[in-house]
Formats: sequence, structure tokens, C-alpha cells
Amino acid sequence: MNQVGIIGLGHVGATTALLMAQRGHIGHLVLVDKNEAKVKSEQVDLQDQIALLGTDTTVSVQDYNHEQWEQLRNLDVLVYCAGDIKLLREHKGNRDFELQMTSQVVKEIAPKIKNSSFQGVIVTITNPCDVIARLLQEYLDYPTNKILGTGTGLETARMHHAVAETLHCNYHDVTGYVFGEHGDTMFPVWSSVQVAGQPITKFDLDLPKLTKKIVEGGYVIYAGKQYTNNGIATRANLDVEAVLSDAQRALPVSAYDEHEQLYIGQLAVIGRHGVEKTVSLELNDAEKAAYHNSVQAIENNYQRVQ
Amino acid sequence: MNQVGIIGLGHVGATTALLMAQRGHIGHLVLVDKNEAKVKSEQVDLQDQIALLGTDTTVSVQDYNHEQWEQLRNLDVLVYCAGDIKLLREHKGNRDFELQMTSQVVKEIAPKIKNSSFQGVIVTITNPCDVIARLLQEYLDYPTNKILGTGTGLETARMHHAVAETLHCNYHDVTGYVFGEHGDTMFPVWSSVQVAGQPITKFDLDLPKLTKKIVEGGYVIYAGKQYTNNGIATRANLDVEAVLSDAQRALPVSAYDEHEQLYIGQLAVIGRHGVEKTVSLELNDAEKAAYHNSVQAIENNYQRVQ
Amino acid sequence: MNQVGIIGLGHVGATTALLMAQRGHIGHLVLVDKNEAKVKSEQVDLQDQIALLGTDTTVSVQDYNHEQWEQLRNLDVLVYCAGDIKLLREHKGNRDFELQMTSQVVKEIAPKIKNSSFQGVIVTITNPCDVIARLLQEYLDYPTNKILGTGTGLETARMHHAVAETLHCNYHDVTGYVFGEHGDTMFPVWSSVQVAGQPITKFDLDLPKLTKKIVEGGYVIYAGKQYTNNGIATRANLDVEAVLSDAQRALPVSAYDEHEQLYIGQLAVIGRHGVEKTVSLELNDAEKAAYHNSVQAIENNYQRVQ
Amino acid sequence: MNQVGIIGLGHVGATTALLMAQRGHIGHLVLVDKNEAKVKSEQVDLQDQIALLGTDTTVSVQDYNHEQWEQLRNLDVLVYCAGDIKLLREHKGNRDFELQMTSQVVKEIAPKIKNSSFQGVIVTITNPCDVIARLLQEYLDYPTNKILGTGTGLETARMHHAVAETLHCNYHDVTGYVFGEHGDTMFPVWSSVQVAGQPITKFDLDLPKLTKKIVEGGYVIYAGKQYTNNGIATRANLDVEAVLSDAQRALPVSAYDEHEQLYIGQLAVIGRHGVEKTVSLELNDAEKAAYHNSVQAIENNYQRVQ
Repeated sequence: MNQVGIIGLGHVGATTALLMAQRGHIGHLVLVDKNEAKVKSEQVDLQDQIALLGTDTTVSVQDYNHEQWEQLRNLDVLVYCAGDIKLLREHKGNRDFELQMTSQVVKEIAPKIKNSSFQGVIVTITNPCDVIARLLQEYLDYPTNKILGTGTGLETARMHHAVAETLHCNYHDVTGYVFGEHGDTMFPVWSSVQVAGQPITKFDLDLPKLTKKIVEGGYVIYAGKQYTNNGIATRANLDVEAVLSDAQRALPVSAYDEHEQLYIGQLAVIGRHGVEKTVSLELNDAEKAAYHNSVQAIENNYQRVQ
Repeated sequence: MNQVGIIGLGHVGATTALLMAQRGHIGHLVLVDKNEAKVKSEQVDLQDQIALLGTDTTVSVQDYNHEQWEQLRNLDVLVYCAGDIKLLREHKGNRDFELQMTSQVVKEIAPKIKNSSFQGVIVTITNPCDVIARLLQEYLDYPTNKILGTGTGLETARMHHAVAETLHCNYHDVTGYVFGEHGDTMFPVWSSVQVAGQPITKFDLDLPKLTKKIVEGGYVIYAGKQYTNNGIATRANLDVEAVLSDAQRALPVSAYDEHEQLYIGQLAVIGRHGVEKTVSLELNDAEKAAYHNSVQAIENNYQRVQ
Repeated sequence: MNQVGIIGLGHVGATTALLMAQRGHIGHLVLVDKNEAKVKSEQVDLQDQIALLGTDTTVSVQDYNHEQWEQLRNLDVLVYCAGDIKLLREHKGNRDFELQMTSQVVKEIAPKIKNSSFQGVIVTITNPCDVIARLLQEYLDYPTNKILGTGTGLETARMHHAVAETLHCNYHDVTGYVFGEHGDTMFPVWSSVQVAGQPITKFDLDLPKLTKKIVEGGYVIYAGKQYTNNGIATRANLDVEAVLSDAQRALPVSAYDEHEQLYIGQLAVIGRHGVEKTVSLELNDAEKAAYHNSVQAIENNYQRVQ
Repeated sequence: MNQVGIIGLGHVGATTALLMAQRGHIGHLVLVDKNEAKVKSEQVDLQDQIALLGTDTTVSVQDYNHEQWEQLRNLDVLVYCAGDIKLLREHKGNRDFELQMTSQVVKEIAPKIKNSSFQGVIVTITNPCDVIARLLQEYLDYPTNKILGTGTGLETARMHHAVAETLHCNYHDVTGYVFGEHGDTMFPVWSSVQVAGQPITKFDLDLPKLTKKIVEGGYVIYAGKQYTNNGIATRANLDVEAVLSDAQRALPVSAYDEHEQLYIGQLAVIGRHGVEKTVSLELNDAEKAAYHNSVQAIENNYQRVQ
């Protein structure tokens, strides 16, 4: 029976839990959040939902203040999405503030995870996604492959949709991936994108404009509701299910780049052990430069919290 | 192809849309909200979600300020969940304030629905659910059976869960319904509740205490996150799907009581035309009194906004 | 990751596998059948299906002739549906012949299961269901609770449908169970059946006629296609999923009756360990007599193969 | 509410119905078959299945011998899979015999469809798929775009699986299509196939051998069970759902080639009107020759039944 934990029941964590309950693939779900009333509230609302759906997921709460987070011990996967959206909102979504705040939070929570004897796979969502993945790995002294970030998985879907909208086709018909930082320096690997089996380069498209639109997609959502949840929670669920079902499938995630020694959005085979291996995709020169640019952006952010 | 509209993209409306996208049963979804940035934000987030899921729902936005809501015309079902959760939060969830506020909003929106030539079924969620259903019916001068409220459908699930938790069994094994006001005077029809085929009266349970727990369930959720969404959005989805699939199935909803001339939580057969018929369930004397008590509570609320 | 095996890839086994692939809840599926070409054929057809669906189930074949069935060792659940439908068809579905044939087959297969060190839960479908469950338990010298038969689970659904059809309502609105032999002496526990919360006895129905119709349902299907598969494979899937998700839910299955010392259709809580406990449902005098009648029928069949 | 009919309840038709009931997307299903006992049997078995699943599909039978097939009139989609598998089995699956037999059957059934005033989309499965699609179009004098055959959709999945198996990756990671005759002359359009974003030509693979394996896949299945059903029924369901949800998605189907004036496996955008448009995919010279070869094979078969 699959067992999953979620740390951080803000909008993203709560929606991730909601979708897990809806999907019905998970036997037991453990919720963890500093805000006791909030996490209890989510538990009760999930139980209402489950009683209506007819799925068999049970939901428990791990007391945040308990010395040892015992409920984490035997979990298969832990979804990490802790942060403080209210504080972030007060800072108008400022990314620098977010980095300082979430890197503090991870410093507080990592020892508790370590102490719980949890040994499963961690799927981390909290932004800046690539930096937080690295901090988690360092603070936990964890195998690099057992941590993966949602990374550019969301932007990959956004790219499919943006291309489809422009060409008046269905997003199913668009294949290919977005790589790099889960942030402004991300880039679609246009050289391998296909639309219904044709290279995208055969279509008369303004690719830089499309790239810009994909980057801005998140801002449009944030502007309207001061958070994003549907897409990112769906992406996290797909990553979690790939681990639980040992999918051995290539997905665009934030995985550890051995050469650059940091986490970054790339293609990796996901299975029972997290990242089973990374997949090298041939990049053209512009894409190589863009990848390097993302490496720099991630490294800079990382340095700012050292 | 099924087409559904949602009026009001607050937490409940947004979660209802999210679940519809996840389920994949709906071909086209129309979103309506006064807050232009918010509704655009939800559209983009839903499109990200759909591009990840591989479902085929398309999502459009009906401009709130347009003279005629043309996109509503051919919809099969309209989910009504307009309100102002922010304003309500400032009033600490005060139910009297909520009544005054939501009854004003429905007065503003009803003419726009009427003007759109929409002729489908309305599933209404906005609280106080039974009063708003009645106001919608009056302002639209609509057939009473083509409007139904989510009513005590949510409390019914909450009852199943509460009984199961107390008896250490599975909520699937509990049958029966909660009737009356979607509010403090609601009541489980204990005389017909069964647990794994046995009347609940055979078990040694403190039923009044259980009833209290069910009433308080919503408050626990509200206390933690200042809104409820998982359960209520799931319930609304089930009602919408019962209409779309012409289920002809008995569900606990807020339906028009011809004798009392108001909407109230009861059992009704839901199908393509909304409420196909109400189902009379034999109540014992205490339950009859409780039903009458709910009728009074709903009527009193209604009078306060005349 | 859930792992399930199926022994016997006739119509029932093949459809059970097909539905498992469709549902996508199972990580790995092991197929076992004496007919090598047939089992290979099902494997390839399942792989085509899975590649179209986008689920992540892997499928392997356990060589029937191998000394040790190693692939069974770590499975969570084993579905047993071995028989010889062709031979049965030549005998025109004769139930006596079926008993002699399937009890021979179980004698051949049980030692191979035992030798595999499999220690999970067995869900058995092969007819006569209650007798085969008992033979499996004896030949394997297995804990009685770790074997369950699909039993009267199918007839329970058939009863819901038959009542709904007669009363022109939805089968969802009918609750209650069928008990006893998975065969001609089965009986609906009418005293606990409800329709939309009302006791069925309040409706003007010819219950004995309805019982007859339910018994005959299987014959109608058999007459038309010389096997039944949709209903029974769906029922088996529900039982398997209840074990895998540790549902702790009361289901009508063939479970061991300690007092009568045989397997018979009754209500039992299904969870990770198979039958977690049986649930006693109060029967009226006629129902008690019917239960005893079923006990006799099952025992008689059992004696004929001793 | 979606309404679908199935003509021919052999293994493929029955499995298509089974999967439709399982998916729950279809409101009403009409079954048609010359064998009255068989079609009744499937109806009852489907109803058992649905009562277990909790979906809301209703199932009716159109009397084959009735002068007018009235139940077909308002259907959205008709799945055509009539044939005589028993007769075919007696002829050991001989493809020439199959052609003669199924082309006779379509001559008998087409007038009945025409007479029913059905105006929806036809998804045809019966082999030889491309020829039967053309015969249906001619006998019905139907718009060419409103008929589509499952064609090389199944081989496309088989190609994904075969490549994945060879490269030890997940079939999800393989994109691209198989074109041409649904038969021995089919061919993967290798020039556009990608594995995790890389052209397949970059891998060291024996592509002709892989092509051979794909062609033989169907024979392996047929050898084992004398029919194929899982894959083909799943493929048909995907095509039907693409029509019902107006997916506007590019799928490999048998669609009308205006230039060659026959139905053949190619890429086409599927939506509410059937084939919304065909999509031209650039073929290299070898692939162009293979396409022409398939055109010839289909045309030759067609001429043999004129």
C-alpha cells in the first residue's frame, strides 16, 4: 500500500492532497504543517471529500511539535512544499525575499525529516525549486538521486499548451521539454520539439516570443490569485505516481547534475528509487548556452543563502 | 459534448473547476467572475493542469462586464457559487452578514443569467444554500425543478464518516441521509441509517452527540482555513455529473418542497432535467419535528432579506 | 508497488487482467496458464493495451512447467481462476462435471502455489466458488482468512440491478446483500435491503420472483456466450483492490464460517490480511433457513469430491 | 449525454462495450447483433458490471430483425465491428476468406444503418479495416470524413512498446506513428520517431527487424487466443472518446486519402465531425514508397470484392 507525506499545507500542498484523494492511488496520507488549525482543517475537508468519492485513502496528521516525526518513517514518498505564502504575499511575491524565507524554513525542517528515519524519495516543489532541492540534499546528507524537484515539468506543459494555442492544434500533439532553472532562465529545447511528428522549426513561429509567453504564464496566474496551484500540484502528483509505480519513464524534473554539482531541470528516468538515471538530450549551441545560463542563475541564488 | 459554466471563482468555484478538469467528463467549461485578473488566472492554471493530465476539456472566460453573457446560452449546467469570501472573512464568517451579502450578489447576477437565454440546470452552492436557491428561482422565474442546491449532500458524507470513525468501520458501509437546512438545524434521518446492513439503532451510540459533531465539522474546517472547498466542490461535481449523465439517482440535495414552498435538504431523483422528482422517506416524529424546525430556520432567513 | 498474479487465463482471468490494466492500480502483473501460447498471447495483447492507455503496469509470464513458480513469491494478491471452459462447454455447462473438473485442477495447482513460497492473499473465482476456496485452503494448509472467494458479491450487484429495474429507480439507490452459496441456493437478505433509505418490504414487490430472476441472471449470460466475464471480473477486481488498499470495508464475499467450517457467501471486512473479520448481520427465520440450506448444498458438493 | 452504438458483439465488440462501461464516459449504449442470445447475454453482463462499478451508463439492445433500427437514429458515434469470428476460425484466420466474409456482412448491414437515419460518426474496426471503411462509405453514400477506421492506431502503440522493450525504456518515452495498411504492408514512419526527445536514428537499432516484430505482434496474439481484443478495443475507445470530446487531436487512424481515393492509415485530426482534417507528415523516399505499397495492397483487396 502506497504511503505518502506532505510537508506544508499551503495552497500547493493542500491541492496536492486534494488531487491525491481524488486519484485514489494512495493508501495513506500523512499531513504535516506548523499551523495546527490549518492542518486539522485540511484533514477534515479531505475526509469529507473521500467519503463522497468512495476512495480508500486514510489521512492522518503528524504533530509538528512532536520531537520525533514518527509517521514519516515508513513513507514511500515525501512531498516537500513548505513556505509562507502569506509572508510572501506581503512582499508582493518578491523572489529574493522568497529565497531567503524558504531557505530558512528548509533549515528548520530538514533536521526533523532526518530525525524521523524517513528513507524514501523526496519530491520537492518549494521555490526556488532547484536551490531548495540542493539545500534539502545537503541538510539531509541524502543520496542525490532520491531527491527530485518538480522543476521545469510545469513549464513543459505550459510550452505544449502555448505551442498548441498558437498553431490551433491540440497540446497532446506537441512533444518535447523545457530545461534549466525553474525560473526566468528556463528554456524550451526547441531543437527536439515536434508537433504531430514534425519538427517545430518547420512551422513559421516566433520562438523567442513563445519562450517569453511560457515564462510569463506563471506571473499571469500569480497576478490573479497570488499563488499557483492547479498545474504545479498536478505536476507533483505525476512525479509522485511515477515513483510509486516504478514507471521508469523519462520526465522533465529538477535532477542532480553531477558535472555542475547542482539540481537543475533536465530529463531523467523516474522510478522507485527517484531519479534512476538522467537522460542526455543533444542540445544545439544556443541551448547549451541557455543551460549554462540557468546553471549560473541557480548557483547565484544558492550562493546568496550560504 | 457536455458544457458547464461556473459563476464565482472563489475557493469553491476554483476547486470545482479543478476537479472537473481532473475528472475529464466535461468538454467545455465557461468561467465567470467579476474579478478579471482572478478569472484569467484560473483559466491559465486550468490549462496548465489539463496539458499535464491529457484530458480534453477546453476552458473559456465569459467577460463579466459584457452586456450579454452569450457563452452561457447553450450550457447544460451552471454551477452558482458567487459570494465574497474576503468580505466574509473580515466579518469572521458571520452567517448573518453572509446572508445579506450573498443575497445582494444574487440580485445582481440573476438578471445577467436570465438575459443570457441559459435554459439548463442550475446547481447552486452559495450559502445560505437553501435561501439562495429560492432567490435564484424567484429572480429568474425559473422552473423549480431546474434548480438544485448542494444542500445536505455534504453533511450526509460527513455523517457517514463520523459514524464510521466512531464504530471503527469504513464510511462505505454506512448508508442513509442528512436532511433539512444546510446549516445548524440539519439532522441525520437516523431511523433509516444502516451500518453494514444493520439499523444504526442497534449499535450503542450517542446519536445527539454525533449530530453535533456533524454540524461542527464545517466550523472546524472554516476555523483552519477560513473556507471549505474539498468536500463541497466534490459534492457539487457529483450533482453536476448526475445531471449530465441523466443518472436518475436519489441524492440528498436542496430541492423545492411544494408543500412548504421553499428549498430544503431532502432526497430527490436527479437526472437530465435537474430534480426529476422528490422521494419521500418516512420520518419518525422527532425527525418530522426536526424537519419543521429546519423549514422555520430557512423561512426566517428568507424573510430577513425581503 | 502492488503486485498481483492471475492463475488461469480463460475468459474470466483474461478479463480480470484487462480491467487491472485499465484501472492502472497495479504495478506488476504475473500471468500463469498451462497453455503457453494463450498466456503469451494475453501478455502481448495487454502490452498493446497498456501502451495505448498510458498506465504503468508491467506484465510477465510465469512458466507453468517450471519446477518453482518464483514469480509468485512476493506477490500481494493471487487471483485464482483456473478451470477448463472448453471442456465445460462440451459438457454444456453441467455443474456436476464442473465440480469434478475444477477440483482436479486445484489439486494439481495447489502444490505449485505452496512450493512458490507465496504468502499473500488469495481471491478465488473458480466455480463452485465456495468449495474451491475450501479445497485451496486445505491443500495449501493456509490461514482461512487469507483466502476469500468472490462468492455472492456478483449476485449482490445483480440484486441491486433487478430491484432497480423493477422499481424504475437507479441501482445505486438499492443497498443490501445476497448471502449463501454462489449457486442456486443463494438468497438476498431481504430483511435488510433498502431502496433510497426505505425498507424494501414497504414496496409492493414479489420478492421470491425477484430472487428467481437473480439466480437465473447467470444462466441468461451463459446461454448467450457460454461464459460470463464482465461482472465477475469486475467483482474480483473490487475484492483485490480492497485488499491492496487495506480498505477495511464490509463486502459480500465467500469467507470462512468458523461454526460451519466451510466457505460461504457472507459479509466480511476486507483489508490487507484478506478477511479481517466476518460481520454478523441479523437474519430472520426464513433467512436463517436459507443460510442453512446453502451450507448443506456447499457441504454436499464438497463431499462429492472427497 | 453521449450515446454510442456497437454493431457486432464478438470479442472485439464485447470488449469495446466492457471498456466503455468501465470508463463511464458514455450515457447510453446500444448493442446490435444478429445473434439474439449473445447480445442479450452481453447486455445482462454489462448491467452486472455497471451495478458493481457505480457508473451511470444505460444499455439497450436494438432488435437486429426489426425493419428499422430506430435506436440508432440519435447516436453520436457508431462502432462497427461486425464479422464472423467462428467462421474465420474454421478458416484458420485466413485473411482472404476474412475479406470475402466481412465484405458480405457490410453489404447486409449498411442498408440497415442507412435506413435508421443515423447521422453521426462511424468508427470501424472490422478487418480488413481500410477496405471495410471504404465499403461502408460507398454503401452508405456517407461523407468521407464521418467514417474513420482504427487503422494503424494499434500498430502505433505496438511500435512504441517494441522500441521501448528493445531500448529498455518506457513506451511513454517513444513518440511517432505507424502508417499505411492495417495489415502486412504497414510501416513505422521512422524518420519522425523520437525516444525521449532524440531521433530514433541516433540509436543503434535494426529498424527492419523491429518493423517485422510489429507486424508479427498481431499474429502472436491471434495464435494464442484466435482473436485479439484488449489492444484493439482500447484503440477504438480512444478514437470514440476523441470524437465525443471534440478533441481536435492528431491521431493515427484510417482516414480517407483524397488523392488515392481510399482509406488508409495516416495522421488525422479527430473531433466532433470525425476526421476534421488529415495532417501531412513529411515522409522520406523509402517511406513514400512504403505508403504507395500500402495503397496498392488496399486497392488490390478492394478490387477483389468488386
